[in-house]
Amino acid sequence: MKIAVDAMGGDNAPHAVVAGAVQAAKEFGVGIILVGIEQVIQEELGKHHNAQALPLEIRNATEVVDMLDSPATVFRRKKDSSIRVANELVKSGEAVAVISAGHTGAAMATSLFVLGKLEGIERPAIATIMPTMKGTCIILDVGANVDCKPNHLLQFAIMGEVYSKYLLKNLNPRVGLLSIGEEATKGNELTKEAFKLLTETSLNFIGNVEGRDVMSGNADVVVCDGFIGNVVLKISEAVAETIGLMIRENIGDNLIRKLGYFMMRPAFRSLKRRIDYAEYGGAPLIGINGISIISHGRSSDRAIKNAIRVAAELAKSEVNKHLHEDIEKNMELAKAK
Amino acid sequence: MKIAVDAMGGDNAPHAVVAGAVQAAKEFGVGIILVGIEQVIQEELGKHHNAQALPLEIRNATEVVDMLDSPATVFRRKKDSSIRVANELVKSGEAVAVISAGHTGAAMATSLFVLGKLEGIERPAIATIMPTMKGTCIILDVGANVDCKPNHLLQFAIMGEVYSKYLLKNLNPRVGLLSIGEEATKGNELTKEAFKLLTETSLNFIGNVEGRDVMSGNADVVVCDGFIGNVVLKISEAVAETIGLMIRENIGDNLIRKLGYFMMRPAFRSLKRRIDYAEYGGAPLIGINGISIISHGRSSDRAIKNAIRVAAELAKSEVNKHLHEDIEKNMELAKAK
Repeated sequence: MKIAVDAMGGDNAPHAVVAGAVQAAKEFGVGIILVGIEQVIQEELGKHHNAQALPLEIRNATEVVDMLDSPATVFRRKKDSSIRVANELVKSGEAVAVISAGHTGAAMATSLFVLGKLEGIERPAIATIMPTMKGTCIILDVGANVDCKPNHLLQFAIMGEVYSKYLLKNLNPRVGLLSIGEEATKGNELTKEAFKLLTETSLNFIGNVEGRDVMSGNADVVVCDGFIGNVVLKISEAVAETIGLMIRENIGDNLIRKLGYFMMRPAFRSLKRRIDYAEYGGAPLIGINGISIISHGRSSDRAIKNAIRVAAELAKSEVNKHLHEDIEKNMELAKAK
Repeated sequence: MKIAVDAMGGDNAPHAVVAGAVQAAKEFGVGIILVGIEQVIQEELGKHHNAQALPLEIRNATEVVDMLDSPATVFRRKKDSSIRVANELVKSGEAVAVISAGHTGAAMATSLFVLGKLEGIERPAIATIMPTMKGTCIILDVGANVDCKPNHLLQFAIMGEVYSKYLLKNLNPRVGLLSIGEEATKGNELTKEAFKLLTETSLNFIGNVEGRDVMSGNADVVVCDGFIGNVVLKISEAVAETIGLMIRENIGDNLIRKLGYFMMRPAFRSLKRRIDYAEYGGAPLIGINGISIISHGRSSDRAIKNAIRVAAELAKSEVNKHLHEDIEKNMELAKAK
């Protein structure tokens, strides 16, 4: 079982990507194919002691995706780009999963076009793992589909449930619909229709959830359209960052407060770890024929290492087989009504 | 100039509402009509020294709105409720503005039905003032309209601009459209169409904004549909609360961290003040024939006092006259294209 990693993608590539792959190969013993300009990757690998003893190989890809390229251009023109070649490795069966921290749109479009949709899935979605008071939850879609129909939200719920089971080991994930009030009658046209569909499924559907429920950890899966999900993700990150900045501003040059901050530092560090996106390494694109993890552009070596771990776990658990079965069963149930 | 205040509405009513009204009457010298069960209000006023010397009067209203009543029931059946009577005072011209911290849906529906829409306005909206790194911004709609057309977002932008000018004293407010990427081509169908309309107006339209722009204070007015706005508001509050709870958990029983927290407390207190909703006392319902402030159910006396200040300022600045002019001008501009 090998994981294809786009070695050229991300703000800290190839350095952090290669370092993360080396760590993953050491810690998890998983086979990794680093995709990109061979010489550059060789050089990076040379910086790591004993890298040649690890299950790492290189696949040459001569083109690099620029952040200014449109996803369509990347797909049509850059056929020897690291993103494209890494996805082709999954398509051909050489690798079981692909990871890229490069151009998000291009990585998503390439996985979608090269690997194709899983049978029964209408719209693949991007899922993100969010920290909550009780652990984590999966929220989806966070950007792949900006205009959705009720049916799409239903499928996102099923996808989220399967990933929650196999990635986060929740036996019976609680699925919530992101809305503006708990009652079934609260929400917009889209969520009210989706609510009805969700009650017909075999899912552990807990109804509408709001911001406070999400952060308290009352749901394991939070379902929304990709526009809302993306806005929620970005505003949450921004609020957390802003609070940090405001606290720093309020400390200012005051020595007592500075000392207080110093004494509290372990508490802040542990907070940072709790809300660190690097823990899960990236956002899986769910509903395609294969496993694709879209990592954050700013991914550290730790984020890449964890993305490789997550990809390997998903492949081992045959998550797509389970997803296919669940989609078939639940679409029947929803249709029956 | 008198302000009608629903003395029975809110978790801390009548105590906090009457206390806030007394403070406002003292500090701003503004006339206030406290609406509700006369005897109860009399009793509360009796607890305040010298209240009889202040410009406060009582208007009896025998019914009280229950949190479980539907807004329609309140409007149709409870015609002598404090919310209804307070709004009728604005309708008859006895008061210039109404404030309620009670049942949000009922307060909104009552203002909408009793006072009616301002000429030219299609959908009144609820605006909230959000703290940012540089001060505050107005975000609207945050819940009055869950399914919107591009035209509605255009009107929200105009409403937000006028309120930013007259309430927050921004001379040339920067208006941003909440979306998922800066480019005009990013967003959902609704925002992409609204983007086009907004470029045709006389507004200082700065294009799409995302979470980070909002929190950095790059926009004075943030426009979105009421579903997104409500979700954003609630998730932002929840993230801020959760960070506080997580910090407390991480401090735990560790004495050094506790001492550090104690030394940093002024920094946390000043943070709390910066992000406290009570500063502006509530959310104005914009686009109706009159001024209506919907206050938070948990409103403190300080929140009520500030809501009265805001209502008086809005009335003095003749905000609705300006709004009417701006709507006429900009709807012409948008139509001309």
